[in-house]
Amino acid sequence: MISPATVAVVGASPTAGSFGKRTLENIAIGYSGEVYAINPRYERIGEVPCYPSIKEAPKAPDCVVLAVARDHVEPILEECAGLGVGGAIVYASGYSELGTDEGVRTQNRFRDIGRASGMRICGPNCVGVINIVRRVGLTFMPNFYGTSIVEGPIGLVSQSGALGYVVLQGMERGIGFSHYLSPGNSCDVDVCDLINYLVEDESTKAIACTFEGVADGRRLRTACCNALEAGKPLVVFKLGNNEISRRTAMSHTGTMVGASAAYRALFEETGAVVLDDFEQMLETVSFFAKAGVPKAQGVGVMASSGGAAVMAADKASEYGLPLPEPAARTSARMHEVIPSYGSSSNPSDITAESLRNMEMYGHCIKAFADDPSYGVVVVPMMSAQSPATVDRARYICELAAGLAKPLCVVWLNEWYQGPGSEVYDACPHLTQFRSMGRCLRAIRYWIDYHGRRDECLSRGTQRLSGRDAAEAAHRLLEGSGAEHALTERRSKDVLATYGVTVAHGAFVKRASEAARAAGKIGYPVALKAESSSIPHKTEAGVVRLNLRNEAELRRAYRAIKQAVERLPDPRVVPGMVVQEMAAPGIELMIGVQQDPQFGPMIACGFGGTLVELLHDIAVALAPVNAARATRMIQSLKGYRMLQGYRGSAAVDVRAFAEMVARVSELAVDFKDEIAEIDVNPVIMHAHGGVAADALIVRRDHA
Amino acid sequence: MISPATVAVVGASPTAGSFGKRTLENIAIGYSGEVYAINPRYERIGEVPCYPSIKEAPKAPDCVVLAVARDHVEPILEECAGLGVGGAIVYASGYSELGTDEGVRTQNRFRDIGRASGMRICGPNCVGVINIVRRVGLTFMPNFYGTSIVEGPIGLVSQSGALGYVVLQGMERGIGFSHYLSPGNSCDVDVCDLINYLVEDESTKAIACTFEGVADGRRLRTACCNALEAGKPLVVFKLGNNEISRRTAMSHTGTMVGASAAYRALFEETGAVVLDDFEQMLETVSFFAKAGVPKAQGVGVMASSGGAAVMAADKASEYGLPLPEPAARTSARMHEVIPSYGSSSNPSDITAESLRNMEMYGHCIKAFADDPSYGVVVVPMMSAQSPATVDRARYICELAAGLAKPLCVVWLNEWYQGPGSEVYDACPHLTQFRSMGRCLRAIRYWIDYHGRRDECLSRGTQRLSGRDAAEAAHRLLEGSGAEHALTERRSKDVLATYGVTVAHGAFVKRASEAARAAGKIGYPVALKAESSSIPHKTEAGVVRLNLRNEAELRRAYRAIKQAVERLPDPRVVPGMVVQEMAAPGIELMIGVQQDPQFGPMIACGFGGTLVELLHDIAVALAPVNAARATRMIQSLKGYRMLQGYRGSAAVDVRAFAEMVARVSELAVDFKDEIAEIDVNPVIMHAHGGVAADALIVRRDHA
Repeated sequence: MISPATVAVVGASPTAGSFGKRTLENIAIGYSGEVYAINPRYERIGEVPCYPSIKEAPKAPDCVVLAVARDHVEPILEECAGLGVGGAIVYASGYSELGTDEGVRTQNRFRDIGRASGMRICGPNCVGVINIVRRVGLTFMPNFYGTSIVEGPIGLVSQSGALGYVVLQGMERGIGFSHYLSPGNSCDVDVCDLINYLVEDESTKAIACTFEGVADGRRLRTACCNALEAGKPLVVFKLGNNEISRRTAMSHTGTMVGASAAYRALFEETGAVVLDDFEQMLETVSFFAKAGVPKAQGVGVMASSGGAAVMAADKASEYGLPLPEPAARTSARMHEVIPSYGSSSNPSDITAESLRNMEMYGHCIKAFADDPSYGVVVVPMMSAQSPATVDRARYICELAAGLAKPLCVVWLNEWYQGPGSEVYDACPHLTQFRSMGRCLRAIRYWIDYHGRRDECLSRGTQRLSGRDAAEAAHRLLEGSGAEHALTERRSKDVLATYGVTVAHGAFVKRASEAARAAGKIGYPVALKAESSSIPHKTEAGVVRLNLRNEAELRRAYRAIKQAVERLPDPRVVPGMVVQEMAAPGIELMIGVQQDPQFGPMIACGFGGTLVELLHDIAVALAPVNAARATRMIQSLKGYRMLQGYRGSAAVDVRAFAEMVARVSELAVDFKDEIAEIDVNPVIMHAHGGVAADALIVRRDHA
Repeated sequence: MISPATVAVVGASPTAGSFGKRTLENIAIGYSGEVYAINPRYERIGEVPCYPSIKEAPKAPDCVVLAVARDHVEPILEECAGLGVGGAIVYASGYSELGTDEGVRTQNRFRDIGRASGMRICGPNCVGVINIVRRVGLTFMPNFYGTSIVEGPIGLVSQSGALGYVVLQGMERGIGFSHYLSPGNSCDVDVCDLINYLVEDESTKAIACTFEGVADGRRLRTACCNALEAGKPLVVFKLGNNEISRRTAMSHTGTMVGASAAYRALFEETGAVVLDDFEQMLETVSFFAKAGVPKAQGVGVMASSGGAAVMAADKASEYGLPLPEPAARTSARMHEVIPSYGSSSNPSDITAESLRNMEMYGHCIKAFADDPSYGVVVVPMMSAQSPATVDRARYICELAAGLAKPLCVVWLNEWYQGPGSEVYDACPHLTQFRSMGRCLRAIRYWIDYHGRRDECLSRGTQRLSGRDAAEAAHRLLEGSGAEHALTERRSKDVLATYGVTVAHGAFVKRASEAARAAGKIGYPVALKAESSSIPHKTEAGVVRLNLRNEAELRRAYRAIKQAVERLPDPRVVPGMVVQEMAAPGIELMIGVQQDPQFGPMIACGFGGTLVELLHDIAVALAPVNAARATRMIQSLKGYRMLQGYRGSAAVDVRAFAEMVARVSELAVDFKDEIAEIDVNPVIMHAHGGVAADALIVRRDHA
């Protein structure tokens, strides 16, 4: 479909502005394969032979474009499928995007036609497929047949036709692409397929992708992994991050792990570069396509204005990029050419003298590029005046071709396409940014991507828990009746089978029993109502902590009993649990939620009553091994609190990481039975730690 | 200087590219006043009469431009001063920006020449002064005399000549300015003066300012207040925010309140709009200059692509902007024209059909602008193709002229200056953004600015503490010897004179005395070493909390005694303090620091050991009244923790706000004596609260 030898356009037409006419015009740019127009009303359209229907064409085309109205799509798809057509592109809209049952049903029939025959279908509601390298312009977009077809290393996938088109128009500034592929409603071909195609495509060096969502998170995960393995950076701008949360959850984790977090976790795991703003996309992917692998972590900034130098330092600091001082030899080389009032530090200021003296630029850029501290050189450009800045741009582009390190030009001028900018935009040896912040941020992504690629690739899952754990947990879940939520004691028993250290308790039905149990456990103890129907026990007043002696225990027993009697149905509390008090430590939490697209998600972070206040939670796709869990913990904003803080001892991060990994294994093993797990607080000490409270919620099976 | 009737250019020259020649060319664009060239070598330069020196000119000029080398500047300034010249502009560089003593000294002499004579001096190291309205181009910038001089409502001030210039070149896209003023090294005229000038200037509707720093924070505060009072939005991009902190501080507040925080506090207090990225500046100030006062809080988004609609919704959510649904009447009006598969919601999707049908745009934009829920209408623009998008741009600009609400066009196309964009850029009735995020962020600033303007203007300071407080505190400070830091007890005594509730303690020198004191106070108590030389007592092991009886107290006494004996110099601890234990509550903090430019700064936030972890601190210029302190508290990320959280009672925010206000009054009254105050923790309860620990550090007087 994307690189066809024969193409047919159904609904081809000589009418100016019609989708059929525009498609033929786009194909006419330079496509070297065979083209058939399909329309019973004509025998030729321009140069192209026209046939009344597909089956009357000389042979079955590799790709058929359906430039016809909605009502005609289905019979033509059926005809194509019957003839062994390779792929079909459907422009027509008015299907699932309307949100109507009828729209969804019709679209699903298209999918079924494709699946039954093996014919791939792109669309409906799509702008088509453009293979720039082979000049296959299967799209109705106006102006694509204009003057500016620029071939380059960027593969572009956009679910929204319009958002891809506005990026592709970067060609008008000289930016080159290999493909623009848009799956529209994705009845069959989706962004995952298209990413996979570009991963295989030799002309594509980096992939830009913008989309709203996918139906199957596992396929996206596979596509992202393929890109990672192939060493093709995948730069993603995801839309639709603020949908109202799809569900409410009993546990607190539920309020914090939305679908957005699942996508983020997937992209993090697979090394994809996730952007916050649409305007970052083209610049960032261009940089990745050209920059290769960093040779050093440092950034060298060569400014011709003090203000730009300070701005670069601010942004480098904001994104945590080091600006090492130049080596003595580098400074010496710069001082050969820059004026006395200039600066050979980093950021350097070679002064406005450089405006009159191009060679000064060349000399200093080379000196920086030769300095082993710098992995990339950033050059802010200030003025825009013809012909000086055009000449300079040509000079610098030529220079960039000979450098062993990537060069970034930051065009700070509000005259966006001022003289010279077109030279930088079109230069294959450097990347131009229109923002200092976006430039340094792209460098941050680049260093992180290459720094983490090996780690992402090598991520195995060595299980901590054995198969017997699953069997024991299975028996406990089977044996715990039909309750939606397990009691705290039963939840802890399940966790314990996976090797999670839990604070055990004794079930009691009388104050005297409680006193006996406490005597055995040893004071201080905690006393809680046993129930699977009171999710927030502290708020309900049925938990008492730190009871130091029998008198306090008995008082607490009476108080909880009274609180239970005030409940709407006191029968939900069959008794109480006496539990050892964990020694004071740092309160953390571990949570699990099932995402409908991504399966079980594991979260960990600060717990106790701080959990909601701090919003300091790391999320990943389950399972995670202990190494990945450690990285999750290290990514917490409050991580240094775990490393020994204000004289308190460091907590046992390794033990916590293993606990996270064990819970994640439980989550995966029982993904069909368990909907949510909330272990909160986990009280961590200098050596080990203990799950002081836990809640497991089952899945509803209809 | 900025609007002179007579101008002289010293160092005028006919040599192409020389600063003197360029300045004459820039003046020649349209300046209607008298011009003298000054150069002993010529009698005329072009049309301009030339004199050997200023004093030989027909009269003393209002403004003299010194386009001469560094060594010639000082005598010419002296000559000008002697002749009663109004103002002088000095281009030459090589002064304080070098950081050399010689550079600073020379520059200070310029300042003194100006001050002695009343002549104002702009520079040195500046690109000059441009009054676009009166076509006074007193600058050496090349290309200013080019084709694109566009008059408009934006006044631009940039300390860095180059950074202002690149913004001014927005004129090449049709964006209009009233002035561009650049003070360079600011030996006399600085950004404060220039802001004040633009506040008075009738042609300026909004002010953009970029700078690195000012010498005198109070003058900046006054300039910002002037802009606020005049209703001229001041949009600021400040450089140099990540300087290595200028000082270390004994108290914890010191690590968190840097100069950056002081600037932020000043801008917040005076309603200035502070930007994070340079590329926001021109778009944001353009919007403010055109948008007037919001008539409603809601944003209406009229997209022609589903992807753009979703992107707008994401960004509106990110910046907390409401997207109310259109009124029934608005939807009905839209349905008259949009296709059935379009959407009349908000964001609406009027579909790509609008590309062929300009009137559809007009009809729908008018419907949205008439809807009382919307204060602004945002229209993302996708395609760029001539002539269609040019025609549409003309049509929409004409339409915008008749709307009662501001219109924002978001040009999402990577063809930055594609066809039609030039029409939007030049349109005085709407604002074009090249980023959805920047557009919605500017709207957020705009709504906040107008929402807070009245509050900023009315901010009085009703003192809570009387004059007698200052006298009592003065006596305590006088009487506390020469120690750099006051003891905890003395610090609390000083705070108490200002009405701050503190936990008092009894000074003891023996365990038996401690037991007697504790008996009086009532258990539980705290026991601490008394010392002004141990800033972090808990870490030093000389604090014991929650002692429940005499036995525990005596054990604690022995333990602290041992810890003291392990100190390098145990004599710094003359005894111990027994103190009542505050009932458990929420731990907050109040801090004060003297900023060298802005005077006393007051900070409040979460305290105790959480203070560094949370980094949740609000900072303001002292003094603050209780209302302003309340807003500081409300701005804390953890504010909801104070409002009653997970079943705990709300804390007395009003009492805490008053405590903050009282401490701020102390800080201002003793700004020459007190360097730092750290009240941490303040333990707050449902009714009132108490300062459990406090430290006052004096200023060093040489």
